[in-house]
Formats: sequence, structure tokens, C-alpha cells
Amino acid sequence: MNRLKANDWILLITKDDKRFTLKLEPGALFHSHRGMLSHNEMIGQSLGETVYTNTGSPVLLLTPSIEDQILNVRRAGTIMYPKEIGYILLKLNIQPGVRVVEAGCGSGGLTVALANYVRPGGKVYSYDMRDDMVNLARRNVERLNLEDGVEFTCQDISLGFLQQDIDAIFLDVREPWLYLQQVFTALRPGGFFGALVPTTNQISALLRELPGAGLGLVEVSELIQRHYKPVAERLRPEDRLTAHTGYLIFARKIFNRYRDSVEAVEETPEID
Amino acid sequence: MNRLKANDWILLITKDDKRFTLKLEPGALFHSHRGMLSHNEMIGQSLGETVYTNTGSPVLLLTPSIEDQILNVRRAGTIMYPKEIGYILLKLNIQPGVRVVEAGCGSGGLTVALANYVRPGGKVYSYDMRDDMVNLARRNVERLNLEDGVEFTCQDISLGFLQQDIDAIFLDVREPWLYLQQVFTALRPGGFFGALVPTTNQISALLRELPGAGLGLVEVSELIQRHYKPVAERLRPEDRLTAHTGYLIFARKIFNRYRDSVEAVEETPEID
Amino acid sequence: MNRLKANDWILLITKDDKRFTLKLEPGALFHSHRGMLSHNEMIGQSLGETVYTNTGSPVLLLTPSIEDQILNVRRAGTIMYPKEIGYILLKLNIQPGVRVVEAGCGSGGLTVALANYVRPGGKVYSYDMRDDMVNLARRNVERLNLEDGVEFTCQDISLGFLQQDIDAIFLDVREPWLYLQQVFTALRPGGFFGALVPTTNQISALLRELPGAGLGLVEVSELIQRHYKPVAERLRPEDRLTAHTGYLIFARKIFNRYRDSVEAVEETPEID
Amino acid sequence: MNRLKANDWILLITKDDKRFTLKLEPGALFHSHRGMLSHNEMIGQSLGETVYTNTGSPVLLLTPSIEDQILNVRRAGTIMYPKEIGYILLKLNIQPGVRVVEAGCGSGGLTVALANYVRPGGKVYSYDMRDDMVNLARRNVERLNLEDGVEFTCQDISLGFLQQDIDAIFLDVREPWLYLQQVFTALRPGGFFGALVPTTNQISALLRELPGAGLGLVEVSELIQRHYKPVAERLRPEDRLTAHTGYLIFARKIFNRYRDSVEAVEETPEID
Repeated sequence: MNRLKANDWILLITKDDKRFTLKLEPGALFHSHRGMLSHNEMIGQSLGETVYTNTGSPVLLLTPSIEDQILNVRRAGTIMYPKEIGYILLKLNIQPGVRVVEAGCGSGGLTVALANYVRPGGKVYSYDMRDDMVNLARRNVERLNLEDGVEFTCQDISLGFLQQDIDAIFLDVREPWLYLQQVFTALRPGGFFGALVPTTNQISALLRELPGAGLGLVEVSELIQRHYKPVAERLRPEDRLTAHTGYLIFARKIFNRYRDSVEAVEETPEID
Repeated sequence: MNRLKANDWILLITKDDKRFTLKLEPGALFHSHRGMLSHNEMIGQSLGETVYTNTGSPVLLLTPSIEDQILNVRRAGTIMYPKEIGYILLKLNIQPGVRVVEAGCGSGGLTVALANYVRPGGKVYSYDMRDDMVNLARRNVERLNLEDGVEFTCQDISLGFLQQDIDAIFLDVREPWLYLQQVFTALRPGGFFGALVPTTNQISALLRELPGAGLGLVEVSELIQRHYKPVAERLRPEDRLTAHTGYLIFARKIFNRYRDSVEAVEETPEID
Repeated sequence: MNRLKANDWILLITKDDKRFTLKLEPGALFHSHRGMLSHNEMIGQSLGETVYTNTGSPVLLLTPSIEDQILNVRRAGTIMYPKEIGYILLKLNIQPGVRVVEAGCGSGGLTVALANYVRPGGKVYSYDMRDDMVNLARRNVERLNLEDGVEFTCQDISLGFLQQDIDAIFLDVREPWLYLQQVFTALRPGGFFGALVPTTNQISALLRELPGAGLGLVEVSELIQRHYKPVAERLRPEDRLTAHTGYLIFARKIFNRYRDSVEAVEETPEID
Repeated sequence: MNRLKANDWILLITKDDKRFTLKLEPGALFHSHRGMLSHNEMIGQSLGETVYTNTGSPVLLLTPSIEDQILNVRRAGTIMYPKEIGYILLKLNIQPGVRVVEAGCGSGGLTVALANYVRPGGKVYSYDMRDDMVNLARRNVERLNLEDGVEFTCQDISLGFLQQDIDAIFLDVREPWLYLQQVFTALRPGGFFGALVPTTNQISALLRELPGAGLGLVEVSELIQRHYKPVAERLRPEDRLTAHTGYLIFARKIFNRYRDSVEAVEETPEID
């Protein structure tokens, strides 16, 4: 049961901690800077076993985790990190059966995670204006056999979303405040909205528009992850860290009409 | 479809941002510092609607998210925060169908999240030495109708876990290094291990024992979340923050034997 | 030499770590929640000695450090913290003999530190629009016998500064970008400019105006201090921290004319 | 007065923000990756002026600040950063006239800062076991004409310090807890102690020994500086940051005897 077989996805880790994910195919060869391994030799091995390349270099055999898959999507541009993705899952209330929209899809890192956690019965509707990004994200999703849970649309979201009564929408675009009418229209009452932006100016621009767009209970935060060198007797933080990936903004659809003006909002009892 | 009906769990938010979760029961009354509301009045309302207490105070009507449920478990002691829980989901590779062990269960905050994301087909095996904690966690799980996915055991984990071939184990106990033999025995090859500890001394103690216990690919980190006041024209971090909830340690079972000595480990090719 | 005598400033620390600074006066009494001490009893004691109140509670006898003095200024409003003050000293190139302008003076915490480090021969020119703040800061400076090094002016700085050829200017005001012409006029070539602002909007507003005001080599940063509980076997960060005191912006006067327009700046070779 | 003359130390900043400090010498030439400049051409110029190399590349002319001097000491090994140095100045109560010991001297970055702020009348006693470090630090101090304020000693500090009744001692050594008896002997009552260590294990080891060594009022902290890209319309933190330089531990000599055992300390009323 824990033995590897043909068509399994595996994770190979070399002595210098380089990581490779690949699908086991009878007769195929794995070439690396540490030497060569035949897939046949790996088929039948147990997970966690160490195998050796033709040059005698040890390679650890594992299955990739969802995190490995996110970090190993073929990339164009920046990716979202596990610390943000895990938090987004909870803040967007992602669950089996949920229907969620994301735009843009980027390389598909978040797409993969969403598709993994809406199973079974849920769906990820993923938008991007760029053909090449949609194709890249689709390939990453297909590699992980998650394509049943994802529907890609190559379209400018200023034209709106094709779905209605959506449970959650996440925007990873440059000017998310331009699409809030579209978000309002697609989102179910009480639905969850999220966005990632890199600059403080974008946070301010988005905060200005959220109340008028029927989105309230706003939270703005950032997650900073500090890694430590895992050495028992010399425990210390890594010297350098990725100090900034982006700011996360979350809100919920709490009004039943889209507001045309801030004054309209003023008349409404303030909740948060 | 988006209208509330009897037995729905709802989230009520008062004007001063106090949050209450409750189940709608015909004839029941909700009493708060802002006045009284009859459940009957809320049944039939849309999500996102504002209702008013008998004193005229507005109350926002929503369904609770998984995050609201985690933050609103009835507590004894400290809880785990969404930032950690989201990251733990990814690092332990939690997925539909997965079997995961946690010890101790505490108030059940992580239990609820794990149970939510192993559906359908998965199972959370939750251990705690204390009867009262098991009962509290069980009540929290039942409130959310997640009890089918959780099996509680009130037992000292130094006696070992009752399961085998487990996909992931998370320890939130004072001395996690004492139970690594038991972890090794219960975990499947390639399985995922995680722990949360508050002090640096505990990290060091755990790091000393992991290699001998067949656990490698070690990662130590902490997540710091910084909230901002959501005011467009005066954007700034909150003055005070929760600076420390705990350090997270993750590893995978990468050796096929439990090691009795560090020397044995030394003979093994180093991987990470 | 290390024995306390009349008119010395002392720091008293009670068993529960409350700190008091006072001047020893023969015949006077010190009253606290831990009991009473006569000044006569303390005169003649060594530094670092423990004395006892009339109720038997121990009190530690020390001289206040510059940090104690900064933290113990009588306050109105927020104060600047030692982490920021220490960094400001270096960034403004504060040295013996230097002439520095600050506005507003606030409670005088930074004033005290600047006055301490421009000795001998230097001068702090401290501005504030409010009489009460100037009086409070002056009393704090006098308590520490630093009044020779400080000149207070109660005046709106939009009228300009009375000094010329100043080495450094620090603005702790709500809209520092309104006074850059005045800063340029008062600052010597190559002089140092600094400001503290709490919001990101203020940083942006200031950044917009700096190049036109002859100020370049701009640095924007914030300092986050994390305190640890000093317990050897249970070392961990404090649970809560002061997450935000303000953003620090520093620049130097690097152009010899004040620019009326951004175009003028564009013609100038860009340096940083 | 603000015109440059022979023997002045200057700071040159090229278009790509490279910084050079040098002493103006009639007839000398400055060579850089951006072209050549004759010192004669710079003598007589105003501070803040832009001059041009023989290839037409602009170079900004300034005097170096104390921070520039610290960052530009010729280095061997790691240096201390301005954020830490500024804070150390306040925590060690550095003032004109103060006598302070440091060990080891490293490249002299902290030595330079201490020497700058104990003027006039104070003295820095700087120890290092290594000849080459003492020589490097001495050259850095001499370059800045601060040599009158510094006395170097190449000696193992386990032999003790040559001074007595010292106001403050700072240890930047691998095992500071080994030298606390020597610290106690050299420090005046109420004197200030500080140390910088990179690992949490070292903090714990130091915390274990401080109370027995007559040192109390212990503070452990770290300073994290976050730099922002100074762009008004796209304000955001730098992507990468120096996450860890070291932990700072401060204490004061508050007991009048050196303790041989922890029991002795237990009998003493606890103060902090």
C-alpha cells in the first residue's frame, strides 16, 4: 500500500536538498546534477526509502505534499506562499462543496490549493486576461489531476463573472477596487471576499471602495514567517527572510444593495 | 436558498462588533447587552440583512465561517489562531480522506479545522489525558455537526496511539520529544509530523530527538500576523499585537527504522 | 564616590518592578504603595544597595540612566521609545557641538536625549505651537539639568525657524511635508533631516515632496522591538508587543536650490 | 564654512548609490567604476554639490555621518548595525565623560560609536584576543581621529579587565557567561552590562549566570528593522530583510557581592 507504483507522483530530494516532483513511468530515467536514476528502480520501493544514483549519491523518495505541489508549480512571475494560502483557505471559508472565483490565476498556485479543498462537489472558477497564464495554470492543475474541480476563463473581469451566488471571491489583480460591482453581483449574500496587494496605496484605494460596494467586516493584515535554522544547540533565526509578499484584505458581503454613493452608506447603521 | 431557517447556525454581530454564534430555534430569544431579538424574527431573513433588537440596536445576520467557529469554540486555556491552523493544514498535507492524529485536543479549535478538511472519508483521532478537555472539545465538534469525522480518546499518549499507518500527527503537548517512538510507530512511511511549542528550549529539545526518531526534512518557523486599522486615509498597523503564540516544527518520516542512537543516524546518508 | 548624596537624582525600584525617579533632599520622605522611606536613610548609601521601607518591603537604589529619564518624563500624549531615539541619534549624526532643531517638542523625551548627546557646545532648538507642551518639556529638561543645551520656542513653524545653518532637523508633526521649504532654509548643505509619522499615507505625502525640497538619499523604515521573558529554561517572546510606534523617514539636504517643480528635479542628475 | 578643504573626510555617492569615504588630499585622484575625479576639483566645493567624473557620471559630495563611518569601517566578520548601536548607547547610558569597556572589538564599528559619544573626557577600553582585529579596529578609529578616546588591549578577558569602577561593559563574545566574575569586578555599583549573542541557547546560558553574578534588572530583546521602498505611489516594504543580527541582553550591577551560588541569591529579596 505504501509502495510506489507506475503513474504515482513522487518527490525526490537530493543530498543538497534540491527537490524534484515527477510521475513514475516504467522505462523512464531521472537525470540530475547528482547522477541518474531509473524509474523502474523506484517502482516498488517504500515511501521514505533512500535510493542511490548511478554515481552513488543518495536520493530520498517521498510523495509530494500539497505544499510541495504549490511550491513546485511551473511559474511565471511571483507565487503565493503557503503561509498566505493556508490563511486564505480559512478566511474565505473554503470547504467541500464550495464554489469560489479567483482572478487572476497566475501560475495556478492558489488554484491548486482551492481545488484541493473544495472537493468533492465544489468548483473553482479561475479567470485571467492572459492566455499564457491560463494555459500555464491549467497545466499545473492537470498535472495534479485536479482539473475536474476547476473551470478556467480567459476574460477581462471588468466584463463581470459568468457565475452567480458564488460563496467566495479572491482577487489577485493590480487594481481590485475597479471590480467591486462585479464582485457584488456574483457573490451570494454573506459571501467572502479577499484580495492580495503589494503596496499600502492599493490597500487605501481598496478600503475607500469597499463600504460602497456592500462589503463590510473588513480585515487588513500581513503574515510574516520567520524561519529558524533547525540546529538544537545553536538555535537562531535565518539571517535573511522574505519580508514582504503582500497585504491581505478580507471582507464579507453584508449589504443587500450596491451603494452608489458614500452618503447612502452613511444612512445605514454602521456595523463594524 | 439564502434565507435562514430553523436549526441553521448563525453569526450575529452587534454595532460594537461583538460576535455571537447560535442555532435558530423557533420560539427562542437572543439576549444581549444591546437588547433582545426573537429567533422567529430572524427565521426567513436573508444573509447579510440587518435586524433590530427591541431597543432599536442594529444586528447583522450572517452564517459563521470556519474561522468564526474556530475562534468561538468554548475555551479552556489558550487557543490556536487561524494563521497557524491554515499553515498546519498545508504542512500536514490535510486532504479529503486523510487520517490524522492530534494530541492534546485542547478546546478543539484545531480538531474542528482538521475535521472540516478531511471530509469526506477522513478521520481525526484526537487524544487528551484530561476528561474535561475531551468533553469540551467533543461538545465543540458536535455543535458544528462534525462528530462523524472525529474519534476522541482520553488516554496518556506515552502508552502509544491506537491507530497505525496514520497520514499525519500533530502534537500540542508540553514535552513532544517524549512521544516520538509512539509517533514513529503510528505514522506511515513519508507521513507528516507537526508540533507547536511556546519556548525556544522546547524547540531545541525536540530538534535533538527528531533525527533518531526517523523524522527528517525538519522546518522550524513562527508566523507573525500584523493587523492594520482599516482606515483608507490613516492606514497604520494596530498599536498592539499578539507577538507570540508559538513556534511550529514540522518533519516527515523519512527513515524506515527507529534509531536507538545518534551514531546509527550518522551512518545513514544525510539528506537534508 | 559611588555613595549617594543630597541633590542626587536617584531611581528607586520596588519589589514589583515599579520605578520612581526623584531628587534626594535631606528631611524629605518617599511614599509608595510599598511603604515609606526617608531620604536621609538613602543619603550615604551605595548604588545598587537594597533599602527597606517602613513596612519591610525592599527597594533597590540606583541612579537613573538616560533611558530611565526618557521613559520617566512627565507625559502628555505618546512618547518616543528608546529604540527610535537611539536610531535617530545616529541617523541625524548627533555629536558633541552639533546644532539641531526639533518640532514639536512633545513631552520632551527626544529633547532630553538630544540635549544629552550634543554636549558640550551643541544646542537643541525645540519648537512647539502649544504653550503647555513647551512648559512640560522645559520642566522635564530642567529636572535633568540639561536646560543650558536647549532653547524652546513656542511658535508655528510655518513661520520658519529662527536659526540658520542647522546641522539636523527632526519633525514630529502631523503634516511634515508642509514645512519643507522652512527646513531647506534652516538646514546647512549636507544637513540631516528626519521625521516620524504614524500612517502610511503620511509617508507617501512626505515622499512626494522631499525631492522638490532639495532633500535626497531618502530612507524609510520602522523599528520593531521584540522583548523576551528573561527565563533561562522557558525562553520565549513576550505575548504582546507594541507593534507600532511610527515610521521613520530620513534624508539629507543634497541640492543647493529649493525646487519649485518636479520638472526641475528631473533635469538634475539622479543620485539615489 | 561649508566648503570642502584639504584633509576633510568626504562621502562620495555615485549614480548607482555606491558610497565611498575618503580624505581629501591635494593632488590625489579618486578612481571608481564610474570614472575618475581629482581631489583638487572637489576642494572648495560646497557640501551637497554634484560633481562629474571624467566620463561625465555625476557624483554627490557630502561629509560622512557617524552612521556612514560605522557602516564603512573596514571589516572582518560581521558588523553591528546602526539600529543595535543606537539602542546600546541608550541602554549602557553612554554620555560625555563615561568610561566603558567593550570586548571583543571586532572591526571597530561599536568602538567608533562609543568613542564618538563619550567625548569629551570619557574613554573606551577595547579588548580583543586577536592581534589582527585590534589592529583593524585601531586603524578604523584612527581614520576618524577618535584615537584619543580609545585604549586597545590585546588580551584574553578571562584574565580580567585592567580597569575598575567602570560605568558600562559590553560583551560581543561567544560565551559571555564565562566572564561575569570579571565584569562584576570591573563594574561600578549600579553600572550597566550589555551583550549581543546570535542564538537562543546563548541567551539561556547567560540568563542562568546573571543573577549569581550580581547583575539584575535583566532585559532581553531583539530589534527588527523593516525598510520600505521610498516610492510615494507604490509604498511597500523591501522584499528581503536582514532578519537576524542578534539578541541583545542588558542588566545592571545591583548587588554588592558576587554570589557563589544560586542559593545565596535566593536569600536576597528579589527585586525584578
